[in-house]
Amino acid sequence: MSSTCGENIKVTIFGQSHSAAIGMTLEGVPAGESIDMEELRAFLKRRAPGRNAWSTARKEEDIPEFLAGLKGNVSCGTPITAIIRNTDIRPADYEALGKVPRPGHADYTAFVKYGESADFSGGGHFSGRLTAALCIAGGICIQILRREGVEIISRIERIGPVKDRGELLSSTAENAFPTADKDAGLEMQGYIASCRADGDSAGGVIECKVLGLPAGLGDPIFDGMENRIARLVFGIPACKGIEFGAGFGAALLRGSENNDPFDIEDGRIITKTNNCGGILGGITDGMPLVFRAAFKPTPSIAREQESVDLGTMKKETLKVSGRHDPCIVPRAVPVVEAAAAIAVYDAYLSRRKEER
Amino acid sequence: MSSTCGENIKVTIFGQSHSAAIGMTLEGVPAGESIDMEELRAFLKRRAPGRNAWSTARKEEDIPEFLAGLKGNVSCGTPITAIIRNTDIRPADYEALGKVPRPGHADYTAFVKYGESADFSGGGHFSGRLTAALCIAGGICIQILRREGVEIISRIERIGPVKDRGELLSSTAENAFPTADKDAGLEMQGYIASCRADGDSAGGVIECKVLGLPAGLGDPIFDGMENRIARLVFGIPACKGIEFGAGFGAALLRGSENNDPFDIEDGRIITKTNNCGGILGGITDGMPLVFRAAFKPTPSIAREQESVDLGTMKKETLKVSGRHDPCIVPRAVPVVEAAAAIAVYDAYLSRRKEER
Amino acid sequence: MSSTCGENIKVTIFGQSHSAAIGMTLEGVPAGESIDMEELRAFLKRRAPGRNAWSTARKEEDIPEFLAGLKGNVSCGTPITAIIRNTDIRPADYEALGKVPRPGHADYTAFVKYGESADFSGGGHFSGRLTAALCIAGGICIQILRREGVEIISRIERIGPVKDRGELLSSTAENAFPTADKDAGLEMQGYIASCRADGDSAGGVIECKVLGLPAGLGDPIFDGMENRIARLVFGIPACKGIEFGAGFGAALLRGSENNDPFDIEDGRIITKTNNCGGILGGITDGMPLVFRAAFKPTPSIAREQESVDLGTMKKETLKVSGRHDPCIVPRAVPVVEAAAAIAVYDAYLSRRKEER
Amino acid sequence: MSSTCGENIKVTIFGQSHSAAIGMTLEGVPAGESIDMEELRAFLKRRAPGRNAWSTARKEEDIPEFLAGLKGNVSCGTPITAIIRNTDIRPADYEALGKVPRPGHADYTAFVKYGESADFSGGGHFSGRLTAALCIAGGICIQILRREGVEIISRIERIGPVKDRGELLSSTAENAFPTADKDAGLEMQGYIASCRADGDSAGGVIECKVLGLPAGLGDPIFDGMENRIARLVFGIPACKGIEFGAGFGAALLRGSENNDPFDIEDGRIITKTNNCGGILGGITDGMPLVFRAAFKPTPSIAREQESVDLGTMKKETLKVSGRHDPCIVPRAVPVVEAAAAIAVYDAYLSRRKEER
Repeated sequence: MSSTCGENIKVTIFGQSHSAAIGMTLEGVPAGESIDMEELRAFLKRRAPGRNAWSTARKEEDIPEFLAGLKGNVSCGTPITAIIRNTDIRPADYEALGKVPRPGHADYTAFVKYGESADFSGGGHFSGRLTAALCIAGGICIQILRREGVEIISRIERIGPVKDRGELLSSTAENAFPTADKDAGLEMQGYIASCRADGDSAGGVIECKVLGLPAGLGDPIFDGMENRIARLVFGIPACKGIEFGAGFGAALLRGSENNDPFDIEDGRIITKTNNCGGILGGITDGMPLVFRAAFKPTPSIAREQESVDLGTMKKETLKVSGRHDPCIVPRAVPVVEAAAAIAVYDAYLSRRKEER
Repeated sequence: MSSTCGENIKVTIFGQSHSAAIGMTLEGVPAGESIDMEELRAFLKRRAPGRNAWSTARKEEDIPEFLAGLKGNVSCGTPITAIIRNTDIRPADYEALGKVPRPGHADYTAFVKYGESADFSGGGHFSGRLTAALCIAGGICIQILRREGVEIISRIERIGPVKDRGELLSSTAENAFPTADKDAGLEMQGYIASCRADGDSAGGVIECKVLGLPAGLGDPIFDGMENRIARLVFGIPACKGIEFGAGFGAALLRGSENNDPFDIEDGRIITKTNNCGGILGGITDGMPLVFRAAFKPTPSIAREQESVDLGTMKKETLKVSGRHDPCIVPRAVPVVEAAAAIAVYDAYLSRRKEER
Repeated sequence: MSSTCGENIKVTIFGQSHSAAIGMTLEGVPAGESIDMEELRAFLKRRAPGRNAWSTARKEEDIPEFLAGLKGNVSCGTPITAIIRNTDIRPADYEALGKVPRPGHADYTAFVKYGESADFSGGGHFSGRLTAALCIAGGICIQILRREGVEIISRIERIGPVKDRGELLSSTAENAFPTADKDAGLEMQGYIASCRADGDSAGGVIECKVLGLPAGLGDPIFDGMENRIARLVFGIPACKGIEFGAGFGAALLRGSENNDPFDIEDGRIITKTNNCGGILGGITDGMPLVFRAAFKPTPSIAREQESVDLGTMKKETLKVSGRHDPCIVPRAVPVVEAAAAIAVYDAYLSRRKEER
Repeated sequence: MSSTCGENIKVTIFGQSHSAAIGMTLEGVPAGESIDMEELRAFLKRRAPGRNAWSTARKEEDIPEFLAGLKGNVSCGTPITAIIRNTDIRPADYEALGKVPRPGHADYTAFVKYGESADFSGGGHFSGRLTAALCIAGGICIQILRREGVEIISRIERIGPVKDRGELLSSTAENAFPTADKDAGLEMQGYIASCRADGDSAGGVIECKVLGLPAGLGDPIFDGMENRIARLVFGIPACKGIEFGAGFGAALLRGSENNDPFDIEDGRIITKTNNCGGILGGITDGMPLVFRAAFKPTPSIAREQESVDLGTMKKETLKVSGRHDPCIVPRAVPVVEAAAAIAVYDAYLSRRKEER
C-alpha cells in the first residue's frame, strides 16, 4: 500500500495530479541540517514542466511551502513536511479516462485496484507530477550529502536510438539538455521533435553516478545499495529497468574481464576498473556508484489508439487530450538524482549506528 | 541492516556459508496452508550444488528442517522457521580472504563494514549458499500461489554471448539445463565448459514470467510490482540489473510502438502486446508479469588476480581456491522464481485487505 | 525517530505547535470509504481548546484541510493528507524555554536530543496540539469502523482524587464533561477549578471501550491488541500508564477470580466476566475491549518552579507563561478514542489478509 | 501478524511450546560485540522452569544453540540466530484444548484466528516458553548495554496482596526470589504456596529500572521510550498493564507535586524527584528509567472451570492438566529485563544516527 520508503529516513509522498496539493514528509533528518531554499528551488526547476519544446505546456511554479520540521531553514529534528499547491488544474480533460483507459497508463490498473473511487484525473497519484515531491525530499538529501563530500551527477545516456557520446564526469545541472556531449544532445532533441511532429513520443536511458562515497555503505541481501536504489528509482513513473555498473553488459563478460582488480592509489584502495558500479555484496567499495535507468516513451501520444470501454466492455478508440511531454526523460534526470540521494543518505545514516 | 523483507509476509534470512546452519523465518503465512515437503525438496534440488559439470563440487544435501510454524505440514499461522545445517565445511580454504580480498567478491566491503569481526569464510552471509534459505521461503510461496492459479516459470535467456532461442512458454523445471531451446542450451553449456577450461567464468540473463496473476496487484510509487520484485531479486548475489517487459529495449521504442493496446478476449480485458511486462503504474494488468535479471560472471576464477594486502597495504596477487561454479546462472534460475514468488505473494496479501 | 505508526494503515504526524501547520498522512485506507466532514469536525471540536473554564485560552478553529487522497469526500485509495493551519501563534511566550527548561515538559530532553536547533516554541513537535492531527486520522478510522459495527466510547474515570461513579455503557460525546455520572463530573470540575485557583493542575484517568469487535483481531507477541493500542496511546503527551481489563487490579486476584469463564449466549460464545478486557493472547475474544490510560497533571502551572539555566548551568526559578489547561484530561478523551480507533482498524485490516 | 519488533535492531521470535525448537533472530547488532555465553546461560536460568516450588515441573535445559551471526562468540554484523530445542514435550496433555478452551488462555482466540490449523499444544506460539527466546535477545542486549554503562535491575514489587518493602536499588539477580526485602519475599512465597494448595494461582507486579542511561534516548510521539518499552513488555504473556514513573499514581497528584524540579549535581543536570520515571516527552532525561508491569495470575489452575465445547457449542467444564506455575511472576522478572534491554538498545542505536 505504501507510498512510504526508507529505513533511517522515511519519505512519504502524497497527493494527486489534481488534488489541492502534492507533497512529502521526510522523517529522520537529524536536527541542525540547513536547507538552502534557493538551491532547492533551482533543483526543482530542473524538473518543472513548461520550460521548453519537449515538455508539457502545463505551468506549475513548483515552489515548495514548508509546513513543518524547520526552524527558519534549519531542520529541528522532527518530520519535515512540504507541499506544492496544484494551481493549473483542468480535470475536465480527463473525465473519460475511468471509462476508456489510456494504453500504457495506469488508468486501467487503477480502476481494477480502486474501482470507481480511483482518482483518474491527470493520472491521480500515479502522475509524474508526484515526482516533484520526490525532488523536494531528494533535494534536501543532496544538500546534506554534499556537506559530507558526496556529489550526485547524471546525464541522458540515450533518447530512442540516439546515444550520448563521451563520459559522465561532472554535473550536467547547468545544461538545458543534460548530456555529456552537446552535439549528441542536439541530435536527441531533434529526435524528440520528430516524434512529437508524428504525434508520437520517445523513451530513453539516464545514467547516474554518486561520487565521493565512503566504502562500507549498504547491507547484504535485501538492503544492498542495488536494492535500496532500485526501490526508489522504480518509484519514478515510466521506469522499466535499472542496472548497476556493467549491468546487463556484465552478463556478456567473463569473470576475468568483469572482476575489478584492487589497487592502491595515494594510500587508498581503489579498483582499476568499475564494472561492479562501486558496489560489492550490496556495499559500496569507495569507487563511484554507477547506475542506469530505462524509461519507456511517454504513453500519452496524440495518435488515435485502441482501447476498451470498461462500462460497455466494447472496443473503443481514444485520442489522449491533456498536456504531455513527448519525452519525459530530460525532466526525469533530477528525479533520478533525487531518488539516488534518498537511498544513499538512508544508507549513510545506517552506517552511523554500526560504528563502535 | 536488514536481512528482512516484505510487508505482509516477512522473510528473514540468516546464516553464513560456514556457520552451523543457514535458514529463514517466514512470517505472515495464514494458517491452513499445507506444504508439500517432497515438492519443496525437489525445488531446492534445482538450486543445490554438486550435481553437474558447471556447478561447485561442494556437496550439501539441502534438506530443510522445519523448527517452527507448522503442525504436521500445515501452517499454523505463526512464524515458520526452517534451517539447513552446513555440513561440508572447509573454513581453512578461506582463511586469507580477510587479508587479501578477492576481486568481485564482498571480502573487501565486508571488511570495511564489519572490520576484523567479519566472517569471511565462504563469503559469510554474502555467500550464494544463503539463496537456499530464500528458496525455502519462495518454494512455500510458490505452492500457495499455485493453489490460487498463479504459476512462475523461468529460463536462462543468455549465457555470455549465447542466447536462448524460442519463447518462454512453460516450466523448465524438468530440464537439467533450463532453456526454451535445447540446442541453445547445449551451446551455452559448451560455452561454460570452455570458460572453465580457461580458468574463467561466465555470466548470463534469466527471464522469469508469472502467469495467472489477477489484475490489481501492487501499489503506486514505492511498492509497485517492479519495486517489490527488484528488492527481492537484487537480494540474489551477483545480480546487477533487472528490467520489466520491454525494459531497456523500451527506451528505443516510440510510444506508438511501446504502448500495449487494450482489447477484449473471451469477455476479459487483455493487451495485444505486453511491452509493459504486465505492469502499469506498478500494478498488474492481468497479463503475464515478465522480467529479466542480469547476473555477472562468478567472481571466483582459477586465474591469478590482482589484489591488495589489507594489512600491509601492498599490492598482492591471489589465486582463489575453494570450490566454485564457473557459472552460477543455471542454479540461480529457481532462486529468481523464489524471489518473484515472495514478492508476488506479498502483493497478493496486500490486495486482500483493500477489498471491501 | 519515527512519527509514523502502523502496519496496514500508517499514520504520520507532522508539525510543531507554532509551525505553519500541523497535519497527518494516513496511508492504507482502501478506496471507497466516505468521510462525513461535519462529523469529523464535530469530533475534532471535542478536543479543541478554548471552549470552557478548564482549557487553555488559545483559540484554534481546528478545521482540517484535506490536501490529498480524496475525490470529493471519498477515499481514492492513495495517501490521505490533511492539515490544520496554526493561526493563533505567540512564539514570544516561549523564547526562554530553550534556556531554562520547564519541569515536567520535554524542553530539556528536546534540547539534549536536538540541541540548539530544537523548536521549543509551544512545545514544538511535543505539543499536545499535535493530537489534533491524531484526531483527524482517528476520526476517519472511527467512521469506517462504525460502518463495520464497531463503536468506541470513553469517559473520564478519575480526576485527581475524584472518581466517576457508574459504568461506561454508552458514548459520552454529547457531554460537555464526559463522565458516566453527571454529579461526579461536577465534582471533578470543582476539583480542577480549585487546582487552577491554586495556580496548580490536575491529572486523571480515561477509560475507553471498543464495542462490537469481532473475535480474532490482533496477533501474538509483539502485535497483540495491548501492544498495538499501547503504542498509539503512549503517543499522547502526558500519558504515563495503560492497563487492559482488570489491569493492575488483576495482580491482586487469584486465577479462579481473574479467569473469565466461557459461556454461550444467543448461540455466541461470550465470557461471563471481562477481566481480560476482551483480549486473550493479544487477540480479541469478541467481548468489549477495555482499557484505561493514566495522564499526569499538566506540567505547565502558574507557580514558580525550580529549574536550571542550560547556558550558565546555574539554578534558576521560572514561572511558565503561555496559555495552558489546568487539566488536559477532558480534552484527551477523544484523542484516546482516536488512538484506539487507529490501532483497532489496523488490526482489522490485518485480519482480512489472513482469511482464506 | 508480526513476531518481529524493532527499528534498528529487529528481534524475531519463532517457535511453539511443542515444536522442534523455539528461537530468535536478532538483526542489527553491530559487528564486534562479544557475548559471554556463560553469563547468557546464567541469565536464561533465572527464567527457566523446574527449579523450585512455585514453577512448573517441566524441565528444559534452555541452552541456546547459536546457528548464525557469530564468529566464535563475537557478532559478525549479520543476523544472529539462536534456538533452544524443545525436549520435554507431552503434546497429549493438550489434545482437547482446541475443543474446550481454557479460560484466561489464548486457546479460544487462537481457534477463531487460525481455525483448526492452530497449534494448541502447550499454548503454541502463545506459550510463556517463547519468552526464553526473548531472553536470548535481551540477554545479548544487556551485555552490550553494560559495556556502555547501562544496567537493568528489577524486582517483584507485589504478589497478590503482598507488597515488597524497601526500594529497588541494586540487582536482585542473585536472589532465589527477587525482592528488595527478604521477609516480604518470604511472605510472597507463602502466599503463592497457599494459592497452589487451593488449586489456584497468583498474579503480581514487577518493577524495573534502567540505570546509567544518557539523556536524549527515545523519540516524540510513537517512538517514545514508553511506546518502545510497552510494545516489548506487552509481548510477555499475561502482562495486562504498564506504568512509567508515578504512573497511575500521577493521576492523583497535582502538577506542583508531580513535576520533577531540575537541579544540578556534580555539574550534571538532575531532577530532584523522579515522578516522570526518567522520561520527558518520550525521551530519557538521564535519571533512572522506571516502570512497573502488572501480570495476571496464571490462568492454568487445578480447579474445575466453566467453558464451552467449540464443536458442539454446549457448555462444558474442564480441569486443566499439564504442568504450570502457580505464579509466573518470579520467572517473568528476567523477561521484563530482557524486554527493557531490547527497547533501550534499539533507542541507543537510533541516537547514534542523529549525532552530527
